Amino acid sequence: MGEVSVVENKKVILKNYVDGIPTETDMEVKLGETIELKAPKGSSCFLVKNLYLSCDPYMRGRMRDFHGSYLPPFVPGQRIEGFGLARVIDSDDTNYKPGDIVSGIIGWEEYSLLRSSDNLQLRNIQLDDDIPLSYHLGLLGMAGFTAYAGFNEICCPKKGDSVFVSAACGAVGQLVGQLAKLHGCYVVGSAGSKQKVEILKNELGYDEAFNYKEEADLDTALKRYFPEGIDIYFDNVGGSMLDAALLNMKVRGRIALCGMVSLQSLSTSSQGIKNLYSAIYKRLRLEGFLQSDYLHIFPQFLENVKRYYKEGKIVYIEDISEGLDLAPAALVGLFSGKNIGKQVVRVAKE
Amino acid sequence: MGEVSVVENKKVILKNYVDGIPTETDMEVKLGETIELKAPKGSSCFLVKNLYLSCDPYMRGRMRDFHGSYLPPFVPGQRIEGFGLARVIDSDDTNYKPGDIVSGIIGWEEYSLLRSSDNLQLRNIQLDDDIPLSYHLGLLGMAGFTAYAGFNEICCPKKGDSVFVSAACGAVGQLVGQLAKLHGCYVVGSAGSKQKVEILKNELGYDEAFNYKEEADLDTALKRYFPEGIDIYFDNVGGSMLDAALLNMKVRGRIALCGMVSLQSLSTSSQGIKNLYSAIYKRLRLEGFLQSDYLHIFPQFLENVKRYYKEGKIVYIEDISEGLDLAPAALVGLFSGKNIGKQVVRVAKE
Repeated sequence: MGEVSVVENKKVILKNYVDGIPTETDMEVKLGETIELKAPKGSSCFLVKNLYLSCDPYMRGRMRDFHGSYLPPFVPGQRIEGFGLARVIDSDDTNYKPGDIVSGIIGWEEYSLLRSSDNLQLRNIQLDDDIPLSYHLGLLGMAGFTAYAGFNEICCPKKGDSVFVSAACGAVGQLVGQLAKLHGCYVVGSAGSKQKVEILKNELGYDEAFNYKEEADLDTALKRYFPEGIDIYFDNVGGSMLDAALLNMKVRGRIALCGMVSLQSLSTSSQGIKNLYSAIYKRLRLEGFLQSDYLHIFPQFLENVKRYYKEGKIVYIEDISEGLDLAPAALVGLFSGKNIGKQVVRVAKE
Repeated sequence: MGEVSVVENKKVILKNYVDGIPTETDMEVKLGETIELKAPKGSSCFLVKNLYLSCDPYMRGRMRDFHGSYLPPFVPGQRIEGFGLARVIDSDDTNYKPGDIVSGIIGWEEYSLLRSSDNLQLRNIQLDDDIPLSYHLGLLGMAGFTAYAGFNEICCPKKGDSVFVSAACGAVGQLVGQLAKLHGCYVVGSAGSKQKVEILKNELGYDEAFNYKEEADLDTALKRYFPEGIDIYFDNVGGSMLDAALLNMKVRGRIALCGMVSLQSLSTSSQGIKNLYSAIYKRLRLEGFLQSDYLHIFPQFLENVKRYYKEGKIVYIEDISEGLDLAPAALVGLFSGKNIGKQVVRVAKE
């Protein structure tokens, strides 16, 4: 390398640990720090320019002062991190060369210095003219893989099964429903706005969809769409929707526990799940999972889902916020359902 | 048959549907009705003298005015029924001959007229001098089979696993713990009295046991006995014990949902299960089951458990009430934990 340039490195930092639902003011977009655009010799690091950040519900867990989860909390005063896509600028790691596009856990900042030994789930991305780069955070990234692994490995789908998906228009849910349709299932989704319900029915191929905010009683809503019961519930929300689903499962139904957006925000004085007793006489199986346990099928996932997409059998909807300044709002928006489809932040043009 | 005798047939009837926990006054021991000790020609029925009745927690479900379960409710004003053992007196069914001992669903009365087409789960009992007849309601009956099927088919036990059993001294729990020990597991049980805790440790071979009523905090209690977490929780109670166990499961732990004595009695305003979110990041599997789904392994169960018993590898503890007059108290006692071991009512000498 010749002359090394030093540039400002804008960051999103966590101000304090968060109880309950995060707000924009829990984060700060911080200017003034600089970074050398260089990977130091002997460091085994590589320096990337960040292109896209993924906004994911699990990140709320890292904003709490809770150390018992599978990921450690963020550190107040320091930049937060999450899945993203970046272009390698300089490298002291022979696996990553300048110009490569990588996905993995990167900082919420303009440039990051990464080291592959830090368990960042780094992966070189094979560019494909037919597929938008940002899809590697959604359809072909953690969200899509969560849908694929959870539906195929946990739900045991069979042709003709009745499938219910909550948060069905979200980053994970939209693919679950489409995979279920490809399996020959009857699929109903719930979402939190009229616009999302229309997208589910008109763009994502769901057989039916409903706005849970307009339902006085979720049990009644599910009985309307599943008069004979539910074989598979892909649960992205927990809480009262899970409780209503438990009442409407068929004998030997399967529930994939993927996320509990509603539950995680509840205080300890809140209600819990009351209908778990249904699992006994209906012989239900409830199973939690993490996509990271299924990485052995990631190549099969990429191959299949890329093919489905290129053949026009599936679509994917993204909600892209432009620029790091909008990143806190984008992340916070997940918890009020502001986003439509997979929420991504574009940090820089490719 | 020659002369037919007509005798009085004492019965236990349900007076009214029950909300919450049943009491003795919800039932009545009724005298005055008579029965002919004869199976009418052409009826395909057979008449039995009832010997033993099984008191089981699931019977509470049949005392409620709730028609959505896998068994219909009892009918107020009529005699209740449950698993029992009886001797055939007269028969119009060639499968059942006078003198045979049968198990199945019989009336809570001195004599019952049964028909095998009524789905009474009838079975001829092979008498065995080394095994008390009443064990065919517990160790070798539905309770024992529930333990066997649930532990082997749902819990996936491996040598060295850490196993927790609630209601561990009960009809099901006492066998679960002993089976777990035979699998080479570390086994801890909870029960509701000091006496039961002593029995668990000194007679049933549990490695450790505790009285949940003496614990200020169940989470703390479980952390004491499982500092590295629980692989298998065989849940006989639901409620706050299930909630505490969820916090203490190891990654990929398994929870067999067998009964929820505590939950079933809760009103709709009560607390639910709050820690189900643990199932996601710990990838837990919770599965409900009914022994009746596993009848294909009943012969294997009988053979194995009889052999374990004869070899002195397992024991079984019964609590026998003498006479139909004490049957309501015996049934009600289940819900306060009065019984020690499998609760049985002896209606008549063999």
